[in-house]
Amino acid sequence: MPAYIRVKMVKAAEEEHPKKAFGWAARDSGGLLSPFKFSRRETGEKDVAFKVLYCGICHTDLHMTKNEWGFSIYPLVPGHEIVGVVTEVGNRVQKFKVGDKVGVGCLVGSCNSCDSCTNNLENYCPKMILTYSATHHDGTITYGGYSDFMVVDEHFAVHMPDNLPLDACAPLLCAGITVYSPLRYFGLDKPGLHIGIVGLGGLGHVAVKFAKAMGVKVTVISTSVNKKQEALEKLGADSFLVSRDQDQMQAAVSTLDGIIDTVSATHPLLPLIGLLKTNGKLVMVGAPEKPLELPVFPLILGRKMVVGTSIGGLKETQEMIDFAAKHNITADIEVIPIDYVNTAMERLARADVKYRFVIDIGNTLKPGC
Amino acid sequence: MPAYIRVKMVKAAEEEHPKKAFGWAARDSGGLLSPFKFSRRETGEKDVAFKVLYCGICHTDLHMTKNEWGFSIYPLVPGHEIVGVVTEVGNRVQKFKVGDKVGVGCLVGSCNSCDSCTNNLENYCPKMILTYSATHHDGTITYGGYSDFMVVDEHFAVHMPDNLPLDACAPLLCAGITVYSPLRYFGLDKPGLHIGIVGLGGLGHVAVKFAKAMGVKVTVISTSVNKKQEALEKLGADSFLVSRDQDQMQAAVSTLDGIIDTVSATHPLLPLIGLLKTNGKLVMVGAPEKPLELPVFPLILGRKMVVGTSIGGLKETQEMIDFAAKHNITADIEVIPIDYVNTAMERLARADVKYRFVIDIGNTLKPGC
Repeated sequence: MPAYIRVKMVKAAEEEHPKKAFGWAARDSGGLLSPFKFSRRETGEKDVAFKVLYCGICHTDLHMTKNEWGFSIYPLVPGHEIVGVVTEVGNRVQKFKVGDKVGVGCLVGSCNSCDSCTNNLENYCPKMILTYSATHHDGTITYGGYSDFMVVDEHFAVHMPDNLPLDACAPLLCAGITVYSPLRYFGLDKPGLHIGIVGLGGLGHVAVKFAKAMGVKVTVISTSVNKKQEALEKLGADSFLVSRDQDQMQAAVSTLDGIIDTVSATHPLLPLIGLLKTNGKLVMVGAPEKPLELPVFPLILGRKMVVGTSIGGLKETQEMIDFAAKHNITADIEVIPIDYVNTAMERLARADVKYRFVIDIGNTLKPGC
Repeated sequence: MPAYIRVKMVKAAEEEHPKKAFGWAARDSGGLLSPFKFSRRETGEKDVAFKVLYCGICHTDLHMTKNEWGFSIYPLVPGHEIVGVVTEVGNRVQKFKVGDKVGVGCLVGSCNSCDSCTNNLENYCPKMILTYSATHHDGTITYGGYSDFMVVDEHFAVHMPDNLPLDACAPLLCAGITVYSPLRYFGLDKPGLHIGIVGLGGLGHVAVKFAKAMGVKVTVISTSVNKKQEALEKLGADSFLVSRDQDQMQAAVSTLDGIIDTVSATHPLLPLIGLLKTNGKLVMVGAPEKPLELPVFPLILGRKMVVGTSIGGLKETQEMIDFAAKHNITADIEVIPIDYVNTAMERLARADVKYRFVIDIGNTLKPGC
């Protein structure tokens, strides 16, 4: 992109809307985040405006700041695990009032008319508007939660519970719904079932908690035996499989009703398919960039399926939050100040976090720093 | 295998059971079929014995005679699309009487006690006994339908209808149930849905007929435009896509609720996944030997699934036959004499048949020829 266009866009970002906003943005695919002045729209009649208090750092943020998926728009303000407190509501807003705790996840808009939208699956609307680095209905670019405040259509905001620490709830808005939704949709939420969770990171550790709260038996499957003690003792998993240990894997063949696979690195599916019983479901929620090898025979011989799912609709996101509140489920987090965000990104890239960074936006993001 | 063991097995095959039997067998992975004397068990108290009248030639027979899947046991009498007439019943048989038309498909036994068996899914029983080239409960090898008569547990036999030509029904017992079962199980049997059938061979052409009889809109997807006229005019498909025509494929993106993919050659899945709507299901019933490339992102973005299924249980096989009888569904066949079988195998290998060979066993298989 020619430099003069970028200059124009940066200027537009600060002036295109009436409300001054401030956050941290990546400026190019180097991915380094730095302070960024921009603007947000006036609170529309169906909008809620809220002060951002905390924002989780999702692995997607890392991909997007570095343009690893090829559709990043710079300057890019990441963040789609956002919680805060409502400061203003439009005159047709029904769900929220000033002072409410509020959460926003990966979506801030959709077409409202397609089959997916009319079935509460805005997350599969072909015209869904992502919370950042996407084009809004009005043609402006969306900016995420690494910022001081947000304005969103109330439909895309959910109520956050009073009984849970707000910071540890933030990751539920992406990591939480990403694993909760397939557990429900594919019927892997029934007591008596036995499921596997592959990968014990931001998604995996929350998946263990949700599945256990649903009464499901959980086996964590990981390349690293180092995670065993924590998986069993802290997260409450029932058993642990080291995926590189062929004896362990062989002994567990045909024992699982389903698997939630959170790994986004390239990895073999055959051993996982082998762990499934007849009719077993392998749900991919991590997104490897390159195609994986799919052996068809093992699927055919057990009517097994490989499926992918992406977050959840807004109705289900609220259900997930309510379920988390009822069962005391939060993410295990490390709270950081905004000026630690680049270091956090580096640590995230090498999986050096248990299990989610959350930025303390409310206390550490100050205009000009 | 040392020669003396083979000699012993050949001898055992002729003498291990009291009833003399005769068929055509492959002797090694060359796959050439030739006359073969063997024996079958006495009709047990739960058994039906029947004279074989017709037997379809399934693509599996070609793989198995050449040991392409690595578990063939020679001498190998193929055939698992078998129809005939009952000649004797055991004293505890309840479903059949002498003179009944009877069919046997891919299975002649299972454990009768596992989860799959107790749920009428004998086809997924880990101890299922295939109709040929498998080891029976008594330790002897099973021989298929390219033979003069069979003895099977009545549980593994189905009633064949009076209103349909028996020869053209034979392929329903494998090809038919293979496509019928996933249409039912995955809910692709509802009027108003739109499905794709990939590959117009033995399985594909029957899949079109079943889906149309269920009231489903059907698009045939094939590499060969030559099949278009027949697909539309003779088989009743609603539309036809040439899979190599990128414009046609692009125009059909996100239009299908499900796909039955009957192709066993290596082929790309990405274009097929693209044809699916959100929640669409790609059902693999062909079994490519090598793993296929599975792009995960397109699955995740539409909660799409790739699944494999294998034939069906005995209860569903009878339902399928009854459905075929009600809707006048048979396979399009070329009836051949047994001494044409090796030529037929060669033609099948190059897909030179519309759409299934059926051997006229009753009239052409004579002891000694």
